[in-house]
Order: sequence, then C-alpha cells, then structure tokens
Amino acid sequence: MRETLSDIGEFGLIHRIDNLIKLEGLYVEGTVLGIGDDSAVIQPKEGFELLITCDSVVEGRHFLTEFMNFYDVGRRAMTVNISDIGAMGGSPLYALVSLGLKSDMKVRDVEDMYRGFLAELNPFHAAVIGGNVTQVESSTFIDITLVGEIKAGYALRRSTACKGDAILVTGFPGEAAGGLELLLHNTRENIPLDHHLIQAYISPNHRALEGHAVASSGYATAMIDTSDGLLADLAHICLDSGVGAELNRKDLPISDALKDSGTQNKKDPYELCTRDSDDYELVITCAPENVEKIKDTIKKISDVSVSTIGTVTNEAGIFHWILPDGSRQRFTPKGWDHFSKQGGNIDESTSR
Amino acid sequence: MRETLSDIGEFGLIHRIDNLIKLEGLYVEGTVLGIGDDSAVIQPKEGFELLITCDSVVEGRHFLTEFMNFYDVGRRAMTVNISDIGAMGGSPLYALVSLGLKSDMKVRDVEDMYRGFLAELNPFHAAVIGGNVTQVESSTFIDITLVGEIKAGYALRRSTACKGDAILVTGFPGEAAGGLELLLHNTRENIPLDHHLIQAYISPNHRALEGHAVASSGYATAMIDTSDGLLADLAHICLDSGVGAELNRKDLPISDALKDSGTQNKKDPYELCTRDSDDYELVITCAPENVEKIKDTIKKISDVSVSTIGTVTNEAGIFHWILPDGSRQRFTPKGWDHFSKQGGNIDESTSR
Repeated sequence: MRETLSDIGEFGLIHRIDNLIKLEGLYVEGTVLGIGDDSAVIQPKEGFELLITCDSVVEGRHFLTEFMNFYDVGRRAMTVNISDIGAMGGSPLYALVSLGLKSDMKVRDVEDMYRGFLAELNPFHAAVIGGNVTQVESSTFIDITLVGEIKAGYALRRSTACKGDAILVTGFPGEAAGGLELLLHNTRENIPLDHHLIQAYISPNHRALEGHAVASSGYATAMIDTSDGLLADLAHICLDSGVGAELNRKDLPISDALKDSGTQNKKDPYELCTRDSDDYELVITCAPENVEKIKDTIKKISDVSVSTIGTVTNEAGIFHWILPDGSRQRFTPKGWDHFSKQGGNIDESTSR
Repeated sequence: MRETLSDIGEFGLIHRIDNLIKLEGLYVEGTVLGIGDDSAVIQPKEGFELLITCDSVVEGRHFLTEFMNFYDVGRRAMTVNISDIGAMGGSPLYALVSLGLKSDMKVRDVEDMYRGFLAELNPFHAAVIGGNVTQVESSTFIDITLVGEIKAGYALRRSTACKGDAILVTGFPGEAAGGLELLLHNTRENIPLDHHLIQAYISPNHRALEGHAVASSGYATAMIDTSDGLLADLAHICLDSGVGAELNRKDLPISDALKDSGTQNKKDPYELCTRDSDDYELVITCAPENVEKIKDTIKKISDVSVSTIGTVTNEAGIFHWILPDGSRQRFTPKGWDHFSKQGGNIDESTSR
C-alpha cells in the first residue's frame, strides 16, 4: 500500500515537499529566503509595485476528486490565483501554499498537487516560497497566496471604466460550465474525459500573459477576470466604476463546442456563456479607438480570440441586452454567491 | 434570530467586512489598492525587504468554540502570524484573510472575528488588504497571509546559530499548554476562565516588538518563535545551523502559575514548559558577551522576562540536559506533528 501522510508525519511531508520544489521548481531573483524559516524574505524590485491575491479551493465544492487527479487539482488552484494577478496586468512571482489535508491522503497525491502548482508557476519563472500544512477531518482545502509584480502605476483596476468605452472579452467564457454539465449529467462510464468542454473545466486557462500585455500597452481603462462569470464580473466593473452596460447578444462569443453541447446538456449556450463558469477569461474596457490596438497587442503574443460585446453607458448599474432584432431588454446580472440560498443578486450587495 | 451568512450571501458578507475594516481598521502607507479588486497593490519601501508568512487555524483542532468567542479566535489566528513576522525581526504591515465558513454561521460572529484581527493589527499600524471567503460544510478554517517589512539585511534566521552561543528564551513557555490542560480536565462549570493559564491559552502573546528590537540591535545570531514548542523550535535552530545544544534544567523558566497548576493538572510543569504549547515566545541565540545587551534591548521596550537556558554546542543534532546535580542526560526533542500517529520525531525529518 502507498504511503499516507500519517506514515511520514508533518515534518516528513514538509521535507518531501521541500525536496520536490528544489528539484522541480525554479529559483526566483529577489528571493532572499525561501521555505524553511518563520517567514520567507523577498527583496522587491525598484520601480515596481507588488500585487497580492489569495484564493482557496475546497474539495467537493471547487474540485471533484472523482473526475480530477491531484496534478490537475494543483494546476487549477494555482491558475485561479495566476488569473487574478494577470487581471491586474501583473506577472506572478512568489506563491505561498496553505494546505488542509486528511491524514489518510497519499503522499504521492500531495506531491502530484505540487507538480501541478509548479507546472503553472515555472513558465512565469515564479516559485513556491512558503506555506503551511495542517490536518483536516473532512474536506481538503488548498489556499494559495500569490504575489506578482507590475511596473508602478500600470495596474488595471475594475473601477476605472468610462462611459462610451467598448467592452471586450477574451476566449469563450462558459466552456468550463458546459464541461461541468457534461460531467454531472452523464453516467460515469459515458463521460468522454477528453471532450473539449470537459478539458476546459478540468484544466482551465488563465490569460495572465494577455492581461500583462494589455496593461503594459496602456490602451485599456479597466480589466477583470471572469472568475464569477462574464456578466457578474462585468457588473463588478460597472458598479465599481459607476457606469452601466449595453451588450449585443449576437456578439457573445459562443464556441462551436458549447453550441454543440447545447442539445446534449439541455442548457442554453448563451446562459452558460454569461453565468458563473470556471474559465478565467478577461473582460477589458477601452476607448473605442483603442479596440484594434488591444486586439493587436494580444494577437502578438497569443492566439486567444478577443470579442467586442458591447458598450459602457453612463446609466450606473443599469444593464441592457441589444437583441438580434435591435430591441433593448433590461436585465440584472446574477453572480455566483457561495452563501445565498437564491444564488445571490450582486446588484445590491457589491456596491463598494 | 440573528442573521446568518446564508441570509446575506457572499457579496453581502464581503460588503459588511469591507465596511467594518474601513471604520475600525487603519490605512497603511504604501497601500496603492486594498480590498475590492482582483489583487491588492502595494508599493514597497526602498531599502526594506518584505517578510511573508502564512498560517491557518482549523476549528476543533486549533480552536475550541466552546471555550472561545470569535473575537478571541480572530485575535489568536492573527497572533500566530504576527509572531512569525516578529521572529524574523520584522514589523507586520498587510494581512490577507482567507476564510472557510459554514453557511449557518452568524454574521455577527464573522464581524467579531474581524474585530479580533484588527485588535492585533492596529497597534502595528497594519491592515487587512485582501482575502477570500468560501463555504465549508464542516470545520471552519482561517488562513492568514501576513506581509511584514524589515530593513534589508536585518532578518534573523534559524540557520545561523554558532557554537558557544548562549540560548535565551522570553517569557514562560508552556503556560498555554497548562491552560489547555485545565480546560480539558475540568468540568464545564468548574473552569475558571479568568485563570492566568487559561488566559494564556485563549489570548496568547506574541513577542513581535521584542523580536524587532532584537533584530535591529544586531546582537543576536539566530531567532525563532516557539510555535512548535520550546524544545522542538530550539531543535529547528540546531538542525538548520548544524549545531547541538546543552540546556540547564534548573534555568528553565517555569512560572509560579505553571508550578501551582502541576498538582491540579497532574502534569510535570517542566514537560509543559518544553513541549508544544500555544504560546508564542522567542528563542534567541547570541554570543555570550551579548546576552546582557539583548536583555537590556528587550527591557527598554517591554517587561517580558528573558532567561538564559543553555549553550549551543558543536555536536550537530545532539541535545543534553544539565541536571541540577551537574550530570548530563541526552534527549531527543519531540515536536508537535500534525500527522504522525506517534507524535512525530522531528530529529529525522526536518534536516532541511
């Protein structure tokens, strides 16, 4: 039988993780002291600001071990955080990983999880410099704090969109939601794990390189990632910027895979595209004359598509669809809400 | 009935927390952007390094809601992290708080928890600048990442103790362990919650001001906090520094309260003083000629006692007691081990 955490103990586990990081991770310039002391020590670069974000995933809620191995669980947990750094325009540098693990978990699975973290960090030349391990009785949790850097003054906020700005979105939001539907509504034997949508759920992308390029270009006015869903995150931009939005229904980027899955899923692809979904695309606003410049900026480094889906209006907190027949339909964006019984209406509660 | 988290939803909760922090927390210089975007943005000070640590506490494992209110739970979770920054010699600046909460938790209890965080942060002029909230089904968890600063080059590590150094310890380690024993081995009605030892458990101190003063003085060679227990943390210093230690049993700081509780607890106060305990004292090593200078440094800012308890030897990983009769007795330090069934022998597993 394979070794479990209770076989090797906390310090044994830390030793194993430390070795794995030394062998398979990278050294990041500016790391004065990494794992192994009361705190990590870093020397920030002059002329740069630091970005700090944290996000946690909980077993059963954010990941399903029946469909995902721990390598994918690790990649995904790190991707969520990289996406947050990228949505400000920054580059990831240092991660701290805090784990709540069950004592019967296999050491091999923890190591695979770390390989997942490193698979996402290494391309950025970013590293795990600290963390914590504690025991939990039921659901495993992974809480990651990620530190990134950005040239001082270049961070793109959600509160700075302007009336008349174009609204852009990268990629095809909703593919992960479509994949999750396929996972949940098929029998275990029936699930094609290599299905494009299921892969979008299991191994989501972040757009951190694209976000960094957009922020560096200086052409965007606001940016956010779609971690709460396309409409909910656009609503964050609008509410924080004191503006509204008008969206062209026909311009929503619905991928062929999502369209095709519609029949199978019995879900409207337009709904999947706009609601909460585990893909991490970017919503970007910019002056209309800069739309092509932003598209070109992204094209230079990536083949991800960029769609213009609407316009920022000066009606604070008011949202309209422009339907294919040209008529306007008012709507209220709903976001993923962890606690609300009704799914939560963010319209009233995020006016901060 | 009081409002629960499911009544107000995630965004409602974030809104409430945000308001509380604005009203009762402080603004920290260098905060370019606090709570409310994909990442926080900070501008580090020139000439300083940043310290980053994270530590989590889990309900039932690290805190007992039957004995503690959520204000104390919050204070304690922040204290653990402040202690880690202080043990490097730094000053806390920015906290990110990641919470795993049950949907039936009272909003008021979450607010009290935040008041606990702020009670510990405000004296340092430090602030909560970000975080995350997620729902859990069973045990509540609090995971805090704390960022501190220290003048470049002044961080005190655990790996730099030298042969011949004196070993100092602040305060009276083990008082919290004594308090926990009292809590666990008394009937509910019988527990004197205002007992000194029980208060040491419920509201532990950190020695961050003392640690900062010691590091700034330049007189210490190594420092660590006693989060794993006096002997386990001394062992961390010895193993990472490639040295051993000789401790004078009679010089161990056993408080009168701990001595008095011995009979009641049926626990050897010497054992309580040296094993894992939830007090956060400092173990400091320094050249013998600097012992008084370090004591004076601490005396200037604090009334916490400092005891000289032994000497660093060049026998790597070898530990001896000097008993009151002058004889030497070899021992192997044991540390708190979250996973090991036997309680874990750190002697073999932390040689990193």
